[in-house]
Amino acid sequence: MKLDIAVLSGDGIGPEVTAQAVKVLEAIAHRFDHVFTFKEALIGGVAIDQTGNPLPDETLQICLNADATLFGCIGTPTYDHNPTAVIRPEKGLLKLRKELGLYANIRPVIAYENLINKSPLKREVIKGTDILIYRELSSGIYYGEKKVNEDATKASDLCEYSRAEIERVAHLAFKAAQKRRKKLTLVDKANILETSRLWRKVVKEISHDYKDVTLNLLYVDNTAVQIIVNPRQFDVILTENMFGNIISDEACVIVGSIGLLASASIGDTNCMFEPIHGSYSQATNKGIANPIASILSAAMLLEHFGLIKEAYAIKIAINKSLELKLTTPDLNPNNPLSTQKVGDFIYDYILNPEDSNINF
Amino acid sequence: MKLDIAVLSGDGIGPEVTAQAVKVLEAIAHRFDHVFTFKEALIGGVAIDQTGNPLPDETLQICLNADATLFGCIGTPTYDHNPTAVIRPEKGLLKLRKELGLYANIRPVIAYENLINKSPLKREVIKGTDILIYRELSSGIYYGEKKVNEDATKASDLCEYSRAEIERVAHLAFKAAQKRRKKLTLVDKANILETSRLWRKVVKEISHDYKDVTLNLLYVDNTAVQIIVNPRQFDVILTENMFGNIISDEACVIVGSIGLLASASIGDTNCMFEPIHGSYSQATNKGIANPIASILSAAMLLEHFGLIKEAYAIKIAINKSLELKLTTPDLNPNNPLSTQKVGDFIYDYILNPEDSNINF
Ligand SMILES: CC(C)[C@H](C(=O)O)[C@@H](O)C(=O)O
Ligand SMILES: CC(C)[C@H](C(=O)O)[C@@H](O)C(=O)O
Repeated sequence: MKLDIAVLSGDGIGPEVTAQAVKVLEAIAHRFDHVFTFKEALIGGVAIDQTGNPLPDETLQICLNADATLFGCIGTPTYDHNPTAVIRPEKGLLKLRKELGLYANIRPVIAYENLINKSPLKREVIKGTDILIYRELSSGIYYGEKKVNEDATKASDLCEYSRAEIERVAHLAFKAAQKRRKKLTLVDKANILETSRLWRKVVKEISHDYKDVTLNLLYVDNTAVQIIVNPRQFDVILTENMFGNIISDEACVIVGSIGLLASASIGDTNCMFEPIHGSYSQATNKGIANPIASILSAAMLLEHFGLIKEAYAIKIAINKSLELKLTTPDLNPNNPLSTQKVGDFIYDYILNPEDSNINF
Repeated sequence: MKLDIAVLSGDGIGPEVTAQAVKVLEAIAHRFDHVFTFKEALIGGVAIDQTGNPLPDETLQICLNADATLFGCIGTPTYDHNPTAVIRPEKGLLKLRKELGLYANIRPVIAYENLINKSPLKREVIKGTDILIYRELSSGIYYGEKKVNEDATKASDLCEYSRAEIERVAHLAFKAAQKRRKKLTLVDKANILETSRLWRKVVKEISHDYKDVTLNLLYVDNTAVQIIVNPRQFDVILTENMFGNIISDEACVIVGSIGLLASASIGDTNCMFEPIHGSYSQATNKGIANPIASILSAAMLLEHFGLIKEAYAIKIAINKSLELKLTTPDLNPNNPLSTQKVGDFIYDYILNPEDSNINF
């Protein structure tokens, strides 16, 4: 297969972890005889510094022309300490999601046996957890009208949803549930919000098209408790943008390290893959950032194009690195490998699955 | 001291747990020579059933005239399965909060040594946790304009905040921090929301009046992770209404049982105290509901009026019941006491602190 991939590595640890993901994709291309081409482009703080724009037109064009975008992370201390700045890295990301029509953000949350002891949660609570979260990504309070009056005595944010915006992501989530354990939980605050009541109405209607899937309804406050107390009860979770931001980050604690979680953002014509961690500026260029989340994003990219055994080869290699504790300091504080060495191991293991573990 | 207390026990398990709290307050009045009078009134589903109104005028008047309100919980299966009903129990609660001017909801989250093993979190993660959450309770997206168009193709909720609404709750939170470990964490989503940016601005300004308190700023998505991964880092948390709803429920998991958490809702002239659990309809009248959260609300009521040693007497008695495992099935599945027996033990222990534990 031929794939043109836009690479937006962004700020902080973005470039170093994304470089490992690109390298791993090159190994896959080599072993499975594909042609992947990579085109780098600016986004976030680094784009502001170089062009004054967190999402330069050229970057957007490159992404629109590519088959897929591999994204690193954005955010720099300058902007994090000054969230009221008018030009901000986040604006680039929000605009990119909107322009690429990425309306579904998909995050798998799996309790890996090799990592289960890293979680702050007890083993017996999380063992066997396998959740797939569908977060609506291009509407809601993120994109509604924002107001602040001149003397800063009043501000507002509007949360808006249309039926069509709910339908398209809901169909994706139901289809995913059909291929899994056939349970979908809609997370909302329908006892308070009109938008949540619209979500319930539309999702209930759509559920008639997916009779094999059981629909559950859960308030967001209760979900925040249930996902910790009894995570195994969940199969697919569907929710709106802001609740999805909070709940899917919370769910990270099940996996044990935020350095291991990847996500796919999907639309009708474009797609983007990224680690869910932030830019972790303090760690920049120290070789301590965990590249696995970024490498897993590359695996999700392959899955999206039906390259299932290729994605599997990456996961096998990651698993091997976890099993042999060939990992960065977040997972292996006493005897860590560098970001690049972890990437090298996974690269080698993909090319020589049998014997590459003897290199370390 | 003389206190007139309105008692709104509400739906589900509300009446049975609130009865224990009233009983315990009677024990305190007896032992410490106070005069507490109680006036019961309707709220929630039971009020709708009897009067058609989830907050009858008479109830509101009783609360306005009382020194404090002791609240149970609201919600019935009929309405929970039908969140789009026009008349709903929640509307009574929201109106009550508004009419009483209860702008601060205060929730202590403490890892009790006697219960630490009940938490899904590892002991070493939560040991020593002592957080006080201040949630803004009378504004934000709960109260902003709600719209839905006629053919249900679009809906919206407005999140609004004024400077004055932020200031009054922020002052309470800073004052609380001054009396504790002098650290205040503002939780918001200032990288996205205009209201959050107003919160940051106002809270930063106010922080100059409390120079002994360290102010930290944390995004809500990161907070959802941090409160699980490293809860001891928090002292006082301050946040807006919806984020407070989610984060403070999430924080329950630290304590181990939602049947143990109480909250105070405070305004300039009124105050209300309630367990944070819901109405748990399936358990109604089975004698299995844990009354401790409701009894702890009564202790918070006493603290609010400066009756510190009285509140302490309640806590000592609760602690004794936990230590002796004289508790309801949620905490003691093998050999449980009933709701009323737990209340009786705490009542007796308050009146005879030395020997009442031999009764069981
Ligand atoms: C960086 C930020 C704007 C973003 C969001 O809130 O969507 C991030 O937290 C995420 O979840 O992808
Ligand atoms: C019952 C519901 C309206 C309420 C809220 O969301 O405020 C409850 O969850 C709470 O936190 O007190």
